[in-house]
Amino acid sequence: MKLATIKDGSRDGQLAVVSRDLKTAQLADGIAPTLQRALDDWAFIAPQLDLLYRELNQGRGRRGFDFEPANCMAPLPRAYQRADGAAYLNHVELLLRAGGAELAPALREEPLMLQGGADLLGPRDDIALPHEEWGIDFGAGIAVICDDIGMGATPDQAHQQIRLLMLVNDVALRNLLPAELAKGYGPLQSRPAGACSPVALTPDELGDAWKGGKLHLPLRSSWNGKLVGQPQAGVDMAFNFPQLLAHLAKSRQVRAGAVVGGGTVSNGGGKRGYSCIAEQRSLELHAKGRASTPYLAFGDSIRIEMLDEDGKSLFGAIEQSVTRAVAPADTRRGR
Amino acid sequence: MKLATIKDGSRDGQLAVVSRDLKTAQLADGIAPTLQRALDDWAFIAPQLDLLYRELNQGRGRRGFDFEPANCMAPLPRAYQRADGAAYLNHVELLLRAGGAELAPALREEPLMLQGGADLLGPRDDIALPHEEWGIDFGAGIAVICDDIGMGATPDQAHQQIRLLMLVNDVALRNLLPAELAKGYGPLQSRPAGACSPVALTPDELGDAWKGGKLHLPLRSSWNGKLVGQPQAGVDMAFNFPQLLAHLAKSRQVRAGAVVGGGTVSNGGGKRGYSCIAEQRSLELHAKGRASTPYLAFGDSIRIEMLDEDGKSLFGAIEQSVTRAVAPADTRRGR
Repeated sequence: MKLATIKDGSRDGQLAVVSRDLKTAQLADGIAPTLQRALDDWAFIAPQLDLLYRELNQGRGRRGFDFEPANCMAPLPRAYQRADGAAYLNHVELLLRAGGAELAPALREEPLMLQGGADLLGPRDDIALPHEEWGIDFGAGIAVICDDIGMGATPDQAHQQIRLLMLVNDVALRNLLPAELAKGYGPLQSRPAGACSPVALTPDELGDAWKGGKLHLPLRSSWNGKLVGQPQAGVDMAFNFPQLLAHLAKSRQVRAGAVVGGGTVSNGGGKRGYSCIAEQRSLELHAKGRASTPYLAFGDSIRIEMLDEDGKSLFGAIEQSVTRAVAPADTRRGR
Repeated sequence: MKLATIKDGSRDGQLAVVSRDLKTAQLADGIAPTLQRALDDWAFIAPQLDLLYRELNQGRGRRGFDFEPANCMAPLPRAYQRADGAAYLNHVELLLRAGGAELAPALREEPLMLQGGADLLGPRDDIALPHEEWGIDFGAGIAVICDDIGMGATPDQAHQQIRLLMLVNDVALRNLLPAELAKGYGPLQSRPAGACSPVALTPDELGDAWKGGKLHLPLRSSWNGKLVGQPQAGVDMAFNFPQLLAHLAKSRQVRAGAVVGGGTVSNGGGKRGYSCIAEQRSLELHAKGRASTPYLAFGDSIRIEMLDEDGKSLFGAIEQSVTRAVAPADTRRGR
């Protein structure tokens, strides 16, 4: 089943079911107004959505309309929880190497995970930031959306609670990051809003590509129309999604609708390319003594997509432009 | 105006208006079902809530009931954003000193702030965790709930968007913290769910005690019935709430309902006591070479409250017991 959230001017948008080929959609308003409401009562709601999904795939949707990713918000425009594991240790190693550091052995034993902010943009929303000089980078990854997970759940228990998968663009502000990490409390300003793919899908949509808690397909990133990365997301993932979820649940109840990412997908660069510019810059720094690839500039575009074995888009594409944001005018009102 | 969220078995509870003396409450269901919904459209909803509040204070509430903090969830049981500044640098200094470190000069220039998880418990919910050995500590603080704040907003602009204040108990797992900080991505497992006061209130309820973006009253913490801390929240706060909000908004749109804390309130120990055990342990370590005050044990209770000049409770009390949590049973189902 494929689900999307359609822009309607409200903060949460409207839940829609999208056909497998991403061509048509139908609002699920008779079933659940939003994806969060569906997740709040998944066992009851999902079968009803699934029925609508089957009708839509058979061309029997009675109120179907053309599916347009530009009209989508993130599947969960306001999530209650967002955590991100850095499960691709190649990526972590490359970024550390650029700073002259090495991967601590502890990071091979237990996931590196940060508490993220759940500012999630739609797939075609701009990456709007005030300063290029902040070192704007993209970060192509995969995230799961889960159901309730009890504190202390095992990876096997957590695995049963994975409801949906989607693609994410975790934007990072590389030039703000070192000072923020030096303060010791992790990234905050250096992690602005990221974006999500047009649809989130249930694991059964992936067939054999979803195996062992990992998604075994290449994740394609294009920068200004040029393919720059297509690493295999199923290899080099040191911790699978169930392990990441169990890590998060060690000391808390994880609640329905939590979004947990696997981090920037990486096979360590080379001919598979990169899912974030910082990796490429680290390789350049190592090989040539200086990083020559610049970060994103205003006007640049990033496209992130995953194709199935037949070359069909699974989640639809994230396709964002980098634009200059303007600070809010002083709108002091009387109060 | 004072607002609370009443437990009704749902994930979000029901919004209620609470009388100034915390004695009666009335559901606001005819106005907004939840506090988040009120915040989503504050300019339209708040005047209606305020009218109900005035009726209630005059004893004219038509469906009033006795207000019982034990029936409260957190005012926002599921917040979309939670960030915590460590604005009381005394506290930061004491904790760093225990680890043999000093306050970096940068931390006097710019707030130390972490991206928190928005797991918010009700005022009487247990601190339920599986292991005492994790070093369970309380952390008494104040948080604001804000309206939309544009990216790049100034502290003055952010100040206008503060809608509510509440008390928080930011529980920390001190023995998990060092290993997590060493990984470099900030606290995650070492920050389990915290709790909120029964009511959140609008700044006008505080009169002169709300001044310069700070709350100028003592915050009282009792441990097993004994008062252990009553630091003045208005002094020693190096960054006020508007500055903390502007820090968060530097590279993101902050959206209505964001909860931003000021960190553990501290006057540096001494006769004002402490708002978290780690501070006291740091002072002991410095004075006597060893920390003698233990962290919380199962069965312990923590009470956090703020009184006005007349000795009346402003927010109601957070009053939590520490209990042993049991890991979830293996509930593998067919799927």
